[in-house]
Amino acid sequence: MSSRAGIVVTGTEVLTGRITDRNGPWLADRLLELGVELAHITICGDRPDDIEAQLAFLAGQGVDLIVTTGGLGPTADDLTVETVARFCGRNTVLDNDLEQRIAEILRGLTSRMPDFDFSAVLAANRKQAIIPEGATVLDPVGTAPGVVVTPAAGQRKPTVVVLPGPPRELQAMWPAALATDEVAAAIAGRTVYRQETIRMFGPAESALAESLRQAQQDLPGYDALEITTCLRRGELEIVTRYRADDAPAYQRLRNHLRERFGAAVYSTDGSTVDDQVAALLTGHWAATAESCTGGLVAARLTDRPGSSDYLAGGVVSYSNAAKSELLGVDPALIETHGAVSEHVAEAMARGAQRRFGADVAVSTTGVAGPGGGSPEKPVGTVCFCVAVGDAPPALRTVRLPGDRADVRDFSTTIAMHMLRRALS
Amino acid sequence: MSSRAGIVVTGTEVLTGRITDRNGPWLADRLLELGVELAHITICGDRPDDIEAQLAFLAGQGVDLIVTTGGLGPTADDLTVETVARFCGRNTVLDNDLEQRIAEILRGLTSRMPDFDFSAVLAANRKQAIIPEGATVLDPVGTAPGVVVTPAAGQRKPTVVVLPGPPRELQAMWPAALATDEVAAAIAGRTVYRQETIRMFGPAESALAESLRQAQQDLPGYDALEITTCLRRGELEIVTRYRADDAPAYQRLRNHLRERFGAAVYSTDGSTVDDQVAALLTGHWAATAESCTGGLVAARLTDRPGSSDYLAGGVVSYSNAAKSELLGVDPALIETHGAVSEHVAEAMARGAQRRFGADVAVSTTGVAGPGGGSPEKPVGTVCFCVAVGDAPPALRTVRLPGDRADVRDFSTTIAMHMLRRALS
Repeated sequence: MSSRAGIVVTGTEVLTGRITDRNGPWLADRLLELGVELAHITICGDRPDDIEAQLAFLAGQGVDLIVTTGGLGPTADDLTVETVARFCGRNTVLDNDLEQRIAEILRGLTSRMPDFDFSAVLAANRKQAIIPEGATVLDPVGTAPGVVVTPAAGQRKPTVVVLPGPPRELQAMWPAALATDEVAAAIAGRTVYRQETIRMFGPAESALAESLRQAQQDLPGYDALEITTCLRRGELEIVTRYRADDAPAYQRLRNHLRERFGAAVYSTDGSTVDDQVAALLTGHWAATAESCTGGLVAARLTDRPGSSDYLAGGVVSYSNAAKSELLGVDPALIETHGAVSEHVAEAMARGAQRRFGADVAVSTTGVAGPGGGSPEKPVGTVCFCVAVGDAPPALRTVRLPGDRADVRDFSTTIAMHMLRRALS
Repeated sequence: MSSRAGIVVTGTEVLTGRITDRNGPWLADRLLELGVELAHITICGDRPDDIEAQLAFLAGQGVDLIVTTGGLGPTADDLTVETVARFCGRNTVLDNDLEQRIAEILRGLTSRMPDFDFSAVLAANRKQAIIPEGATVLDPVGTAPGVVVTPAAGQRKPTVVVLPGPPRELQAMWPAALATDEVAAAIAGRTVYRQETIRMFGPAESALAESLRQAQQDLPGYDALEITTCLRRGELEIVTRYRADDAPAYQRLRNHLRERFGAAVYSTDGSTVDDQVAALLTGHWAATAESCTGGLVAARLTDRPGSSDYLAGGVVSYSNAAKSELLGVDPALIETHGAVSEHVAEAMARGAQRRFGADVAVSTTGVAGPGGGSPEKPVGTVCFCVAVGDAPPALRTVRLPGDRADVRDFSTTIAMHMLRRALS
């Protein structure tokens, strides 16, 4: 037995890509945690026909639960509740009690606005108190209530949870939706899964594919594992979902990948390279010296709360003069080896250690493109150095594919992994 | 007559929210530009049944064109081509010529890897050369070719464009897809629209909503304009689509917004603040001094090709010692006013001018949170300075809402706008 769900995201601004949908992914996570299988996310504009077509599609796919987001506002193009009511075979009714509660909220919101035509707003918001007959109301977080709607008697359709579009309101309302008897009944068939993530840095995606094909042939129980792989920011991520009974099969898979890829498998406990570097930097005092990454390494390291405990700061030395003036790189070194060289990368890292009084420093210097390449050092050539104390530094030169943004982004990931290795 | 399209985004990692889909919004933009009406975006995991259900749903909705993204890799869970072939009633065949081309690409990619089992990889990649009979191949950008598939004779179904998942590959392949006769025929019914973007910085979203309500009452032809507004990175973006005949109505709207919001309307020609700052910095020599933004301002300025012509570099002075040592900020100033103060922001900008020999400098210092706040300077308090030559600097202190990422991101946008104003 299992329980399946679909998500309908409504809103022309989302469909047309003006704003990025944050609700679909958030709800997907919640459903997965619950053990509800998510089959489809569909996105449409504020058109009742399109919304209804998506509801009918999901019902036809046999889902037990549909969650809709958006279209609950007071304006004329907010039509989700009406559409869901029609889909479920329910009339709509004005909930007087709910209308009073919304009026109270509006009174609070507008009390400090002078010259405010309160009666006009009330009229506009009356719409929000019109709900499908028999629906369970989810109290407003903003001004829009949500509803949980079950199909009218005799209709075999999924239960629909109707939630507002603003992520803050939707997220705050979700627990109330889960607490209803209707939702509990709809997802009664859920199965609890475990989910584990393995992260690798280095191997090509096709090498992983080959290794998984091997695993399928060799490892007992492999077919009970639901494995997805993805290439993200230059790393390979392998996410596996399985039932508790299949834990031994998962352990075999993890061991297989460790044997095949060795130290390239850097995380099997869910931690990211950012998590690991942050932990490894505890007790150190670190600095960055960046050329082609232009501040991205520093920005990534300072992304985390508490990073001021181990990060002194950094220098973006875009010009050669800045490399010399701020990091003390000998101009003769740049003259002899070029700014994009391991010699200069090392001098930058050493300079950062000195200037910031840091024991750890990481540096990047490269050709991000599209200009600045040469036959010897084409676009995508990047040199790195990680220095820890007085020990011989870790040096590396790579030639990266892709455009300027790709080269900068991938370089930032490489810098993180070099830090991780040097500190491990 | 009109032309409708749907987008099918495949990938368990996207469905489950582990990676954010960038392809749906990008393709939505391209289709809108072409005058093709986008009806639905659907997202599913790497399951052939779910992909096929979505294709059938879109066909049932009468779309002329379906674009799929993802599922073209060499791994076993990459099944889009096979599924689309079945949907279109086509057998699949091995394209020998294509297999050779993919092998060439792989040879190039792996030539510098020692100990590489090339034959295993070739076998894994053979799958990518198996295409629907009669399909038009779109040359690989990475290793995965795309295909354009039309329904088998006698089937009334949309044309399907099958594109790879990595945004860089998908975007590079799109022009080739558009250039095929099959796609041209599928979207022959499109209506050509103009699309214009107005960008504002400063006003609240509700002030814009109120002003648009007024415009609807007052401006002739307003209802012929298709307007979407969105709040993005602290800016308001107003995108309007209209037919050429309705250009006067659009001009009235633009004038209305300019009258109502004045200089807050900073762009009506599609340019972003990044475009404008890059143009304004030409002929200058600039530097950054960042605390709470931790390198994001430098990273944003160096995001553009050619930025080395006007950007000397920057300092991320996370610690107070770094503010003094690298930027020459007087420790007594920090002692008296606190690191988060306009006094220190100004000293940081002046220090950056001096150290980098720059005429323009921008600085940020603030409390990004979640820790570090005080009753007087709560989380979200950020001070900025922009100095141009010896002129009195532009100073500003704001209190921003949201979490650490929001505060850092919004601060970066404010720094860009302060640069724009100071240089205009």
